[in-house]
Amino acid sequence: MLYDFYYENPTRIHFGKNSLDALKNELNNYGKKVLLVYGGGSIKKIGLYDEVINILNAANKEIYECSGITPNPRYKDMMRGVKLIEDNNIDLILAVGGGSVIDCAKGMSVSMGLKDPFKDLWLDFKDVTKNNVPVGAILTMTGTGSECNGGSVITDEDRMLKKGRVFPPHVYPKFAILNPEYTYTVSKYQMVSGIFDIFSHLMEQYFSGNDENVSDYLIEGLMKTLIKSTKEALKDPKNYEARSNIMWTSSLALNTLVGCGKEQDWEVHSIEHQLSAYTDCAHGMGLAAISVPYYKYIYKYGIDKFVRFAKNVWDIDISNLTKEEAALKGIEALANYIKESKMVYKISELGATEEMLHDIAYSCDLGGAYKKLNHEEILEILKAAY
Amino acid sequence: MLYDFYYENPTRIHFGKNSLDALKNELNNYGKKVLLVYGGGSIKKIGLYDEVINILNAANKEIYECSGITPNPRYKDMMRGVKLIEDNNIDLILAVGGGSVIDCAKGMSVSMGLKDPFKDLWLDFKDVTKNNVPVGAILTMTGTGSECNGGSVITDEDRMLKKGRVFPPHVYPKFAILNPEYTYTVSKYQMVSGIFDIFSHLMEQYFSGNDENVSDYLIEGLMKTLIKSTKEALKDPKNYEARSNIMWTSSLALNTLVGCGKEQDWEVHSIEHQLSAYTDCAHGMGLAAISVPYYKYIYKYGIDKFVRFAKNVWDIDISNLTKEEAALKGIEALANYIKESKMVYKISELGATEEMLHDIAYSCDLGGAYKKLNHEEILEILKAAY
Repeated sequence: MLYDFYYENPTRIHFGKNSLDALKNELNNYGKKVLLVYGGGSIKKIGLYDEVINILNAANKEIYECSGITPNPRYKDMMRGVKLIEDNNIDLILAVGGGSVIDCAKGMSVSMGLKDPFKDLWLDFKDVTKNNVPVGAILTMTGTGSECNGGSVITDEDRMLKKGRVFPPHVYPKFAILNPEYTYTVSKYQMVSGIFDIFSHLMEQYFSGNDENVSDYLIEGLMKTLIKSTKEALKDPKNYEARSNIMWTSSLALNTLVGCGKEQDWEVHSIEHQLSAYTDCAHGMGLAAISVPYYKYIYKYGIDKFVRFAKNVWDIDISNLTKEEAALKGIEALANYIKESKMVYKISELGATEEMLHDIAYSCDLGGAYKKLNHEEILEILKAAY
Repeated sequence: MLYDFYYENPTRIHFGKNSLDALKNELNNYGKKVLLVYGGGSIKKIGLYDEVINILNAANKEIYECSGITPNPRYKDMMRGVKLIEDNNIDLILAVGGGSVIDCAKGMSVSMGLKDPFKDLWLDFKDVTKNNVPVGAILTMTGTGSECNGGSVITDEDRMLKKGRVFPPHVYPKFAILNPEYTYTVSKYQMVSGIFDIFSHLMEQYFSGNDENVSDYLIEGLMKTLIKSTKEALKDPKNYEARSNIMWTSSLALNTLVGCGKEQDWEVHSIEHQLSAYTDCAHGMGLAAISVPYYKYIYKYGIDKFVRFAKNVWDIDISNLTKEEAALKGIEALANYIKESKMVYKISELGATEEMLHDIAYSCDLGGAYKKLNHEEILEILKAAY
């Protein structure tokens, strides 16, 4: 059964090889002052920085820049952007990069005038006004879905906290430009990390509920696309078919659509957020290392869905298996996918030390769908993932 | 491979048993004068008319009414609404009903000030301005997806033409209220007609292209949901799980999402439009009667997709079959689904006469994906469907 839900997604998507052509028209919707937000040099290396600057200049925009946004974007970097916005009355924040850059841009968009936005918005969950500065996104890495949702995960190093907040639709990027070719030069490590982030988004929405509804069927379709495309992209990172399918799957996995009418889990993300607050690991790799121990821990509480996962997602012939066997076969297939795709399988490889595990476990937010875990149980999972 | 695409869907969806509660807040976004558009008495019978009137009165709206919109909505009825809008400066068109009512409301929304809107907009495809009157929708029948797209199919009886036009996103309903319980009292005939309309929307987007992309996987998921839910809803029309899945699948099948990056077919719809211009048949039933002969005619030109259809949608074990055999098994499964669901299988049962066939065939728009048909070939298909 679908629970009552509200769905709205106002982001305009320009997808494909020629999608940057749409920027010119999009810029017409906003005032003169544009804050360009980006990370390190990668957008310069692929020539995208110059292209964007040329389009902005041709549109007579005043360009401000906030660069150096890192993976696991830092609160202090976000606040550099907020200051630029406040000092210069910015009309549009143009985020060029991956999920970290876009998350950070959304954070800037809603933080003006606040003394301690991290506390107000990410810890105390205060409402945001509709006077936020509009954000546009040009995506160069896939995984987070940040280009078409309200998510913003920010790491405050002083507080040793990485916290996610989902802002309402008026904070979503107004437009997103998705050219799969921009993702060609991302390292294989980053590529598969992003892919597992997508896969985890799908699982965390899938593993809840005991009925079969349309959202579950959609999620299975996205998972199958991803499994197929991962193999192709690993073989040839410039396989446009694979990269375009991964890119669009990434957006669809977390534009809030496939979670409609469903309870959701998100405990793996909660655990990973603290894992990377302590280790600064690649987000998707953290998820990959936690997922198998996590699902082995909780599958008994939602076993029918895990049986379905084995059959519908991994094409496992379950006709002669017990539910228990079928469910475990599905999780085993997931484990093999992680290993074969060269994702990280152990948190020890991500810089976690035995001493950290307790603190990570006890600083996680508690969530979960089939099973609500306590901190002690999370510690057990972390030990199994170590 | 995904072709370059643009995607935008601004419709706000309120879904579920309590979704009408959202109307009050939605009304705050618009001025005082509301034109209520609906069909016959069914919304009065289920008490929805009174509920809506009460909410409008409580919000101090001035209510105007345009009722009597029929299935295959007529141009002359649409023009009654246009006159009411022009005479009274309507601020919001509130469509309460199924796809016909909403299609008609969208037509009204864009037709002010034109002398012959049918010619300008549905035949000559002139652009529409952004000054259209906003539309809101409360859905009582599923099938068309009209509640969250720009489609508007209008029948001009004088010209003997039923023509569809897809308007841009600013014409989409601003909000749609979807309560599956409103669909309980629709007759079984109308219910399965709507269901096949959905199925046809999915097939007409699916049967194109020779690769496997995310849109194809999504469509398969929606088809599987629909097949499962059809059985449940036929057994018990008040099965909320089934009706809620059908309702949301209907929206997702034609909110333009699953067609992203794909070539599309739509020839079955073209043929049906003229079939019902001549017979006034239920749209979905017309589609059901045409589909099997149509797909038997074209499957050779896209055989791999038809093999995939058999395997992924109908769970047919194709391991010992030739491609030809597998493809035909899939179409046979479709035929069985139509018959078992008590949909109409022959256009003769819909009022078509042998004499009509030639005129129907030669008045169809020509489209198609795997195979572009000429009028003579369409006539052959109609004969096979007769």
